Amino acid sequence: MKETPKFAVLGGGSWATAIVKMLCENLDTVGWYMRSVYAIEHLKKEEHNPNYLSSVEFKPSQLMLSNDINEIVRYADVLIFVIPSAFLYTELKNLTEPLKGKTVFSAIKGIVPETSLIVGDHFFTHYDVPFNDIGVISGPCHAEEVALERLSYLTIACADNEKAMLVGNNLSCDYIKCTTSDDVMGTEYAAMLKNIYAIAAGIAHGLGYGDNFQSVLMSNAIREMKRYVKKVHKMKRDINDSAYLGDLLVTGYSVFSRNRMFGNMIGKGYTVKSAQMEMSMVAEGYYATKSAYKLNQDKGKKKAKTPIINAIYEILYEDKNPKKVMAKLTEKLN
Amino acid sequence: MKETPKFAVLGGGSWATAIVKMLCENLDTVGWYMRSVYAIEHLKKEEHNPNYLSSVEFKPSQLMLSNDINEIVRYADVLIFVIPSAFLYTELKNLTEPLKGKTVFSAIKGIVPETSLIVGDHFFTHYDVPFNDIGVISGPCHAEEVALERLSYLTIACADNEKAMLVGNNLSCDYIKCTTSDDVMGTEYAAMLKNIYAIAAGIAHGLGYGDNFQSVLMSNAIREMKRYVKKVHKMKRDINDSAYLGDLLVTGYSVFSRNRMFGNMIGKGYTVKSAQMEMSMVAEGYYATKSAYKLNQDKGKKKAKTPIINAIYEILYEDKNPKKVMAKLTEKLN
Repeated sequence: MKETPKFAVLGGGSWATAIVKMLCENLDTVGWYMRSVYAIEHLKKEEHNPNYLSSVEFKPSQLMLSNDINEIVRYADVLIFVIPSAFLYTELKNLTEPLKGKTVFSAIKGIVPETSLIVGDHFFTHYDVPFNDIGVISGPCHAEEVALERLSYLTIACADNEKAMLVGNNLSCDYIKCTTSDDVMGTEYAAMLKNIYAIAAGIAHGLGYGDNFQSVLMSNAIREMKRYVKKVHKMKRDINDSAYLGDLLVTGYSVFSRNRMFGNMIGKGYTVKSAQMEMSMVAEGYYATKSAYKLNQDKGKKKAKTPIINAIYEILYEDKNPKKVMAKLTEKLN
Repeated sequence: MKETPKFAVLGGGSWATAIVKMLCENLDTVGWYMRSVYAIEHLKKEEHNPNYLSSVEFKPSQLMLSNDINEIVRYADVLIFVIPSAFLYTELKNLTEPLKGKTVFSAIKGIVPETSLIVGDHFFTHYDVPFNDIGVISGPCHAEEVALERLSYLTIACADNEKAMLVGNNLSCDYIKCTTSDDVMGTEYAAMLKNIYAIAAGIAHGLGYGDNFQSVLMSNAIREMKRYVKKVHKMKRDINDSAYLGDLLVTGYSVFSRNRMFGNMIGKGYTVKSAQMEMSMVAEGYYATKSAYKLNQDKGKKKAKTPIINAIYEILYEDKNPKKVMAKLTEKLN
């Protein structure tokens, strides 16, 4: 890696915009790939992203903007991918530049539906990026609060601590504190699982369960998450660290979470299909539920006890009655 | 204990009312001590508590009501105390009947200010009740949701599991699930500490910190609670069980929590005194902060690391500037 590595963000949504904002607090130039030419033109002229966090002002002179993914990948040494996992596979089809040799961080929470892999594994398996060059940026963090410069904590996970430090240092500022971790797998799986639990929280809310039950659900969810990530990647970790429990709470208790909203509609009686159509997008926890459930079935290892994931799987993929499934689930919680 | 032990609830507030409601689902007669003659007359005539959870209907024929604490103590084998800890000492002054020989459960969350003891210790030290006869009823549970018959989980802790089972069985119903535990001390301290963390959450909110920070605060709070209860009473427990984490979450995330409200006012600039006067009551976490802080200082043992409790102590008792103290605290969290 060069002495002053170049950073770029790939993605045009609110979390991508928030990460560019953080980098702009530290770097002279930040590369930024967005698919939308319109958004790029707007950013250059109006100095803000027209679609997301539009209150955040940028200096166009500080941005190296492009709608050509290869140009941005060529430009930067550290690539931060923030493309929603549902679109990642398609976006990466345009990529001809190699990712090998780059430091590749993911701030994507979820599963690549086409390969059923978490993002780190996807880059490793399909783009030959060695695990030492792969990292994860995790919350607990709503992008909207970054826009407001409200104090937020990030966890930067990479097997290579120097790379985690490098990324952390360039994201840290007055309102962003970064902790590093070597638990890439655990952090990424936790970020994915929390979306399933947010759907569960939403379904419960939609069905009329109250705050008392919600707290029991979250208490059971963190214990289930602990068992799950332990099965996937056993190592010493405190599941109550911000990257795991904090991330679960900020999503599970957020009324703005798309996953919670999706669950809420299902609890209120929408079918899975109609809830998706109504939201005009697919909540990431929808894919995560299937992948997490399947992964727990095979792998030859002993299954982790996951009553919540199983219940959500039954509701989303086996067309079971949400009210009945949740009633059955309440018997398994404590 | 007799074959069909008699139960009584002591206290007239919303949590007392909720517990009487649960017992009435299971028992022919429930003893109920309330200080207010007016409330008792109203209950007999109008069939609901005039002051708390007034939507809950009772059958007066099912209640053995009295404003004479000794009459109720004489009547019952199992006594459930639900008098706010700030008034417990004074209320008990009227007691001439012995408590020894009774099963004494506390659903009070807090410290008896006059003796700086948690309630179980207070009964043990000042009323000769052996520890095997002392138990705790703990949430996570808002009384208001019990009134609405929304599914709630309780933890019933007693060193004598049979007594925990007895109480649990008589509180359980369609909308109440009880788990038993032998961790009386841990459950009671957790219930007390959570009020301090709710004050912290309120102060942070009042100062303008957002949901991202709130989740980090709760993630740090549960780790701090784990260290604290481990110091007070070391035993095998999962701090993420509902009695600890669930109870913390239901309070910390509740906008109705008096402790959180009290903290919020302080964050907004009220002095401690004026916040107390404005609320016309003292939030239990106020006393808990002093006791928890002091207890951590002495006892001869190694101090638990408690940055959050220390910060709240500085704000409430050392007249330090909340904004500065919280800013300093943010440096210690991760």
